[in-house]
Amino acid sequence: MRLSPYFPILDWIKTYRSETLINDGMAALIVTIMLIPQSLAYAMLAGLPPQIGLYASILPLIAYALFGTSRTLAVGPVAILSLMTAAAAGKIAPAGSEGYIEAALILAVLSGLFLMGLGLLRMGFLANFLSHPVISGFITASGVLIAASQLKHILGVSAHGHTLFEIIFSLITHLGDVNWPTLAIGAGALIFLFWMRGALKPLLAKLGMGEKLAAIITRAGPVFAVIASILLVAGLHLDGAGVKVLGAVPRDLPTLGLPRFDADLWMQLAGSAALISLIGFVESVSVAQTLAAKRRQRIDPNQELIGLGAASLSAGLSSGYPVTGGLARSAVNFDAGAQTPAAGVFTAIGIALATLFLTPYLYFLPQAVLAATIIVAVLSLVNIAEIFKVWRYSKADFAAMGATISVTLSFGVEIGVLTGVGLSLILHLYNTSKPHFAIVGQVPGTEHFRNIKRHDVLTQTKILTVRVDESLYFANARFLEETIYQLLAEQPQVKHFILMCPAVNRIDASGLESLEAINHRLKDAGVTLNLSEVKGPVMDGLKRTDFLDHLNGQVFLSQFEAVKTLEARV
Amino acid sequence: MRLSPYFPILDWIKTYRSETLINDGMAALIVTIMLIPQSLAYAMLAGLPPQIGLYASILPLIAYALFGTSRTLAVGPVAILSLMTAAAAGKIAPAGSEGYIEAALILAVLSGLFLMGLGLLRMGFLANFLSHPVISGFITASGVLIAASQLKHILGVSAHGHTLFEIIFSLITHLGDVNWPTLAIGAGALIFLFWMRGALKPLLAKLGMGEKLAAIITRAGPVFAVIASILLVAGLHLDGAGVKVLGAVPRDLPTLGLPRFDADLWMQLAGSAALISLIGFVESVSVAQTLAAKRRQRIDPNQELIGLGAASLSAGLSSGYPVTGGLARSAVNFDAGAQTPAAGVFTAIGIALATLFLTPYLYFLPQAVLAATIIVAVLSLVNIAEIFKVWRYSKADFAAMGATISVTLSFGVEIGVLTGVGLSLILHLYNTSKPHFAIVGQVPGTEHFRNIKRHDVLTQTKILTVRVDESLYFANARFLEETIYQLLAEQPQVKHFILMCPAVNRIDASGLESLEAINHRLKDAGVTLNLSEVKGPVMDGLKRTDFLDHLNGQVFLSQFEAVKTLEARV
Repeated sequence: MRLSPYFPILDWIKTYRSETLINDGMAALIVTIMLIPQSLAYAMLAGLPPQIGLYASILPLIAYALFGTSRTLAVGPVAILSLMTAAAAGKIAPAGSEGYIEAALILAVLSGLFLMGLGLLRMGFLANFLSHPVISGFITASGVLIAASQLKHILGVSAHGHTLFEIIFSLITHLGDVNWPTLAIGAGALIFLFWMRGALKPLLAKLGMGEKLAAIITRAGPVFAVIASILLVAGLHLDGAGVKVLGAVPRDLPTLGLPRFDADLWMQLAGSAALISLIGFVESVSVAQTLAAKRRQRIDPNQELIGLGAASLSAGLSSGYPVTGGLARSAVNFDAGAQTPAAGVFTAIGIALATLFLTPYLYFLPQAVLAATIIVAVLSLVNIAEIFKVWRYSKADFAAMGATISVTLSFGVEIGVLTGVGLSLILHLYNTSKPHFAIVGQVPGTEHFRNIKRHDVLTQTKILTVRVDESLYFANARFLEETIYQLLAEQPQVKHFILMCPAVNRIDASGLESLEAINHRLKDAGVTLNLSEVKGPVMDGLKRTDFLDHLNGQVFLSQFEAVKTLEARV
Repeated sequence: MRLSPYFPILDWIKTYRSETLINDGMAALIVTIMLIPQSLAYAMLAGLPPQIGLYASILPLIAYALFGTSRTLAVGPVAILSLMTAAAAGKIAPAGSEGYIEAALILAVLSGLFLMGLGLLRMGFLANFLSHPVISGFITASGVLIAASQLKHILGVSAHGHTLFEIIFSLITHLGDVNWPTLAIGAGALIFLFWMRGALKPLLAKLGMGEKLAAIITRAGPVFAVIASILLVAGLHLDGAGVKVLGAVPRDLPTLGLPRFDADLWMQLAGSAALISLIGFVESVSVAQTLAAKRRQRIDPNQELIGLGAASLSAGLSSGYPVTGGLARSAVNFDAGAQTPAAGVFTAIGIALATLFLTPYLYFLPQAVLAATIIVAVLSLVNIAEIFKVWRYSKADFAAMGATISVTLSFGVEIGVLTGVGLSLILHLYNTSKPHFAIVGQVPGTEHFRNIKRHDVLTQTKILTVRVDESLYFANARFLEETIYQLLAEQPQVKHFILMCPAVNRIDASGLESLEAINHRLKDAGVTLNLSEVKGPVMDGLKRTDFLDHLNGQVFLSQFEAVKTLEARV
């Protein structure tokens, strides 16, 4: 029985019915059709041969079905991880070379091991380091970068670069080489796909189609574009006119095996793999949580680490590259009625069959159409409204978000997300290192005490109460001392000082050190030090020390009681 | 007038009297006598020629007197920074070589620039990242490392190593080479110095001597040991018997100039310089604050950054190495009656004179005696009681402290302190990412609400109040959602949910995102979401968004008011 949390499949396999099978099978069919062009497109975005994208959509899906906790998450290659893989592997070898493909494999293995390790150590909380504004800013900036990087396929020119500036500059210098048939196909595909996204769903609804079916058809836009463009290119022999096509894809299933072990190379890729893991995890978990909430199901973030880790690891062992749960694909899976992770297994079978039998028919698929599907997909990730919302709400959050966006666009994805994470941690510590504090008084007619600056409250001249609005920990220990000494220096008539602690959630060793110093100093100055509304867990900690024995004053359950008692003594 | 905060000298120079001059001069004389052997010893510890230690005790003291805010801090070479300098410069070139000396100079320049930069940007709060247990553990471990590294001088053998294990192993393999006259002098000096520390002060007090004078004489122990050992070695010609002596020290004043600029080398040293700066700053500020508090003076941490930065920078420009305020030396300066930073200027003049005229008399000073003074000084930094205290109070703090100590001893100083800082940040975030929360009820007869698990309180079946004991920010945003959904799932009869917010000191964009999700979900479930005791600054933030417009419930000033109002509606 102890195995069950690590094998969520045991929870659902025993209640599996033929009805569930039909639902899962239907969803798998739709997701497979959608996933074929996606896999090819994302492999292209990652700078990898097309079959790598297909391989990343077979075994990883089965692994996730065994270990993942979401019933409806659709795992596979995604845009952001493809971009990050390209950035990391590009540091090792030129795109498409053997060393590059090997690096992508190693990234998948390392990222799988890293995620599984975190899961086994129950360290899913590490993903919390990525704050909402940082993630949102990173995804927006990556979306812009990816869209820009695909423009060369739409224009039919060769361009390169890892930053927005480099890409745009490179595109401009190559503008003279535009291949017009390619541009016609690419622009046509773009317009068609944007129309599918924006206008088709309301149209279908108007025609009386059910909402779910309309959503699925809308999302299947790329499939229509793929079929139409293949027919067009093959019919008009446009590949002879400079339109780059997918070409021959090997009709083999992936071979299993560990990538070559080279300690130096693996170490070089370890940092990138860790970043890929965390970004992929956060992206996937937020999708999985949203979908689970809709059906009142739950996911277990620590087990998700194991599930996604197993998926990436098996991608690395089967000639794939890093994968995670994708947003659009999971939504289609959900809408199409997937009930259990078995849908993922059926999808994997579908992709394997497609690899064996369908790829010859994709020979004439223009790269421009794949690029168009990528552009349309990633531009839906760009969220400008969110930037304005964060700006209005919190300048500190905006600073972290703005730094993430601008550094990602100007210097690349890895340094971008690291800057955002670093900055949000520093800002958080900065904020807590200078906590808000208030001198408080009694709200008349109540036992409630509030800030004298914001409320009309009653105070006493010989009793000073300060409510400090932060846990007392190393980052603000000195600040508290300074503040209290200064307040007491300004009000020499005070005989009783009360530190009101409803907001003190923790006192660490540095905070205790400060409290002891304050107690000592106040004793010298003839002022008592009292605490009120100290929480249970904080009090438990203080009781383990001798602080309370030496306390030059009392601890009161409530602030009201403290003032009543001390007033009687003045 | 605007200049005054950057030139604290302007505050005290105008009230300078002849009486102050006498006090400062007297203190300077005593500190100079103490500083001569210290400068030589710490230069030896840093692996630098003796004159570098003297040079680091001239110009830096004048620079600090101009820019520092402590009236009594005595700046100069200190043990911990000497060890850190040796570790950093040792990565560039072999100890004592020209490249090594150059690296030490560059470290001083970089660390000076770094500190001044932080000061000008008012970023003194960065030092708060070094928590009390990490600093305390680091100093203890460094003390042990330094003491171990000096044993070779006491034994008269050659040994090497950067970690405790390496040093001990190296000592053991060289035990056969012990030079007995050296050991006799070294052990004698050790015993004498420990006796001075432990037994002399009570003895002098018993003989009727004033406490301050007794303290000064006790601290001057090394001076007696130096004089006695010079006479002994010179008289018995022990340098011929293998006793290593200080030898000839160049009788020149330092030459001014910038170390050679080599971008690669400077970059290589930048990280170490930043660490040296922060550690030096924290050590110095805690000494300065302790001493200032005794005379009800204040220091300004941001201006201290500038003062200490100017000191280190001028050390780098005058053939010195990184300096900071020293514990023992500052205490002597304080006890000896120093009134203003002018005492530092007089000390600098004293050291300059000693460099010119006294060094020939130090020729026969045995290295073993310098090593003994180092050992006695650093062992007083080792604080084992503190380790036990932190263990009892907080296991998280102990983990950070223990990691700092063991990594410092096993792998070196830089990685040790970085591990400690990293771990304490991670533990802090971990703690705040799973905040304590309590279901609360009314304490009978009061308007006060406390945890139902710890207190006998009144509750209502249709109203659920949760007090979450943490700011709502990115690290715990998801946790809050999960917790509330689970509590409400367990109590389906609840109609009104109150989130009691006295401990919520901040809601960042991620926290707001969660609150919005909770509001949405509770609305669907037919439960109202109410907030009570939201603090002013938090409320200000919420008012800048449309959250309150969509809130499916109310915000109440006090928890008592919330329950009273909602009870009437049930």
